[in-house]
Amino acid sequence: MNDIAKNPARAYDPIHPGLRPFHSEIANFVSGKLTPRAYLEKCLEEVAAREGDVKAFVAMDMAAARKAADASSERYKAGGPLGLVDGMPVAVKDVIETEDLPTEHGSALFKGSRPAWDAACVYFLRRGGAYVLGKTVTTEFATQPPGPTRNPWDITRTPGGSSSGSAAAVGATMAPVGLGTQVRGSVLRPACYCGAYGMKGSFGVITNQGILPFSRGINHLGTIASTLEDMWLTLHYISRNAGGEPGHAALPGKTEMPAAQKPARLVLLETIGWPRITPETQHAFDGLLAQLRAQGVEIVTRKDSHHVERFERLIADIMQVSDGIRDWEARYPMFPYYDRDKSKLTPASIERTEKEISKATPESYEDALRRRRDMQDAYAQLANFADGCITLTVPAPAPQGMPTGDASFLDAFSVIGMPAVTLPLLKVENLPVGVHLSGFHRADSRLIALSRWMRDLVLK
Amino acid sequence: MNDIAKNPARAYDPIHPGLRPFHSEIANFVSGKLTPRAYLEKCLEEVAAREGDVKAFVAMDMAAARKAADASSERYKAGGPLGLVDGMPVAVKDVIETEDLPTEHGSALFKGSRPAWDAACVYFLRRGGAYVLGKTVTTEFATQPPGPTRNPWDITRTPGGSSSGSAAAVGATMAPVGLGTQVRGSVLRPACYCGAYGMKGSFGVITNQGILPFSRGINHLGTIASTLEDMWLTLHYISRNAGGEPGHAALPGKTEMPAAQKPARLVLLETIGWPRITPETQHAFDGLLAQLRAQGVEIVTRKDSHHVERFERLIADIMQVSDGIRDWEARYPMFPYYDRDKSKLTPASIERTEKEISKATPESYEDALRRRRDMQDAYAQLANFADGCITLTVPAPAPQGMPTGDASFLDAFSVIGMPAVTLPLLKVENLPVGVHLSGFHRADSRLIALSRWMRDLVLK
Repeated sequence: MNDIAKNPARAYDPIHPGLRPFHSEIANFVSGKLTPRAYLEKCLEEVAAREGDVKAFVAMDMAAARKAADASSERYKAGGPLGLVDGMPVAVKDVIETEDLPTEHGSALFKGSRPAWDAACVYFLRRGGAYVLGKTVTTEFATQPPGPTRNPWDITRTPGGSSSGSAAAVGATMAPVGLGTQVRGSVLRPACYCGAYGMKGSFGVITNQGILPFSRGINHLGTIASTLEDMWLTLHYISRNAGGEPGHAALPGKTEMPAAQKPARLVLLETIGWPRITPETQHAFDGLLAQLRAQGVEIVTRKDSHHVERFERLIADIMQVSDGIRDWEARYPMFPYYDRDKSKLTPASIERTEKEISKATPESYEDALRRRRDMQDAYAQLANFADGCITLTVPAPAPQGMPTGDASFLDAFSVIGMPAVTLPLLKVENLPVGVHLSGFHRADSRLIALSRWMRDLVLK
Repeated sequence: MNDIAKNPARAYDPIHPGLRPFHSEIANFVSGKLTPRAYLEKCLEEVAAREGDVKAFVAMDMAAARKAADASSERYKAGGPLGLVDGMPVAVKDVIETEDLPTEHGSALFKGSRPAWDAACVYFLRRGGAYVLGKTVTTEFATQPPGPTRNPWDITRTPGGSSSGSAAAVGATMAPVGLGTQVRGSVLRPACYCGAYGMKGSFGVITNQGILPFSRGINHLGTIASTLEDMWLTLHYISRNAGGEPGHAALPGKTEMPAAQKPARLVLLETIGWPRITPETQHAFDGLLAQLRAQGVEIVTRKDSHHVERFERLIADIMQVSDGIRDWEARYPMFPYYDRDKSKLTPASIERTEKEISKATPESYEDALRRRRDMQDAYAQLANFADGCITLTVPAPAPQGMPTGDASFLDAFSVIGMPAVTLPLLKVENLPVGVHLSGFHRADSRLIALSRWMRDLVLK
């Protein structure tokens, strides 16, 4: 049943994704060498070949996708594409509302639910000429339990979650870009397990309007793509057009790739997941650190800096702080969901509602917010001497079976709202493992400049 | 057609509202002297008598209201009311979603629209045993143009807006409490014109989930009531139960009235509306200031303090800053509304979309946010020497005709997100005029303590 064994041509290869990145094709759309419709057909060929195994999608409307791709093809032909995302097919996590396809939030309570309007991110992507290739599998309410999706590199393994389907669709090269949402590690972990690039920006740089309203104080819309370019340009485009959360400005600057920039100094952060790293993964990561040091990049650990030590000490309690924020914020809409029809919730949701969410108080929330501010202040100190932070995205490649894996490396960066990426630069047991880089508040573009340098170093 | 002339018993009287306040009746519900159902019937008698003239409601379901009131009556009888709001009828502005009555946002585009879920504020009120008396008239999307509602004290005059129906319902004593929303002056102005108490809390202390998603960076859910007690207890109850906006804690403390507290020093703020105050209104306000001074309250003006002068100078540009925030935030959902069916929008909305919203950029928004922070910093300085700020809510009583009146006194307090109340303490031309008190960030309870002292001073 091992997919790599069955089909060696699909073996994980971070350098050569199966589908050409969308942004590499724009010049061909402009010149007429390729059309957005032909690009869609390549995606649909992959869907025909892989979806039966991977099970990334919950809803598709191929006729509508073809119509949108044709309209885009006409715009290029007429010399008037709408912008950078015109003709781009996007796999959309099914916690993001769409007016033309159902939005079910991975829940029986929302079976067949048809929102009246597109979420802001989807609306502005469509306004720029992009279109929805399909809605993708999510865990129930982006928490637990997992859906049917399987890892495209080995279908006996989890794709990660909760943005399972978007990551798997990109990993299987059925789509160049997927949208996901992250509260703990729900964009970066599945991106990592599926061999993709994944990013969430600084908290607030993309509006959550029209996205499942849980954990609104932490939730980040993120992008998953087969290249750093598709990942960043899509995320930046959405921020600039849909705007941020209320009171948060969009990302600054033009939507373009920043030049590669070598960091002088990176903080190595050992998160609470550190003891679970497997020897093979540690070996691969050590190899990368050696490569960085060989380039003259200084790696700073808690042994070198009391600022690093302090931040690591604070995030040792990250699960408590994360739960403290999430449980209070989940009262709405979880209480009305529970009241309306408890029988349509999974046992995991019922138990969480009765045992955890019901116990949250304004004071437990305020305390968690205070502890988050302490972490944010401690993290901000690192910017005084480092260009960014490096760690692993996960302690090991995607595990066998279907639990969505380990968020212990990622939770802290989500809670404190710092920009973070996973780069599929390591191969462990012939499977992808991501390198996690995090940057500083609203300096998302600088994080991409470092990521680009590191990607080029490792993959060229 | 002047209602006061037609019916002198209805002449504006700030001391004796027609309907007894809800919270004064709780002891009677507990003792069995009165039932919530009988309280509802008094409201419905007023509805029968006044609604034809006042036109406050867009939707009612009296059978459902009676059923909810009966259920509450049973709980009191059994000795187990659900809490402080059990049995309370609430008039709900029709930009707030309800699962049992349509939610039309004052717009033809939403004619008959039936949301699947209650907004968070409504859900948690119902969870505490309160119920929806009816949905009330709002201007289109809580902006322009006005609906059919008329001022209950003189039906040839505006009730104010955009929370026109909630304020008029309370002013006409058809309901003890109404919910409204304020971006410029949309809770306090109509409350003032209709002779009611009105409050918006510090920005973020009540979640906007399920409320029309415009101006999310400024929008405040507020309460309108015939007494300070009903106004504050309801607002505080919603905050404690529904929670705040993401990352904002609920109001601290128990839901109870703070003791009256005499201020030592109040800042008199002359907003941009100052030159428009009519002589009669100025005279009434001067009388109040004299009364305060006679009690030993020091009134500080810009002539006494450069901090006051600086704040007044900054808010001279408030319309630009307010527009700068609102226009960018309105892109979603105004663009999709416009795209879907422009013919269902009013000319005012079409013009605003084409001429103002379309021109907003991430930079214009960021600039407005920066200017708002400057105002907030300048305002915060006032807390070092004053207990609060006093001004008028409006420059004159409700004008003849139906424009919703003047927000020039209120816009600044909304934009900077400070807690603010209007107290119906003045009578001008036999009509109500409100005194505007504002407090400091998250010190909402202290603002109520001052308000209570001033109300008792003037009305006892």
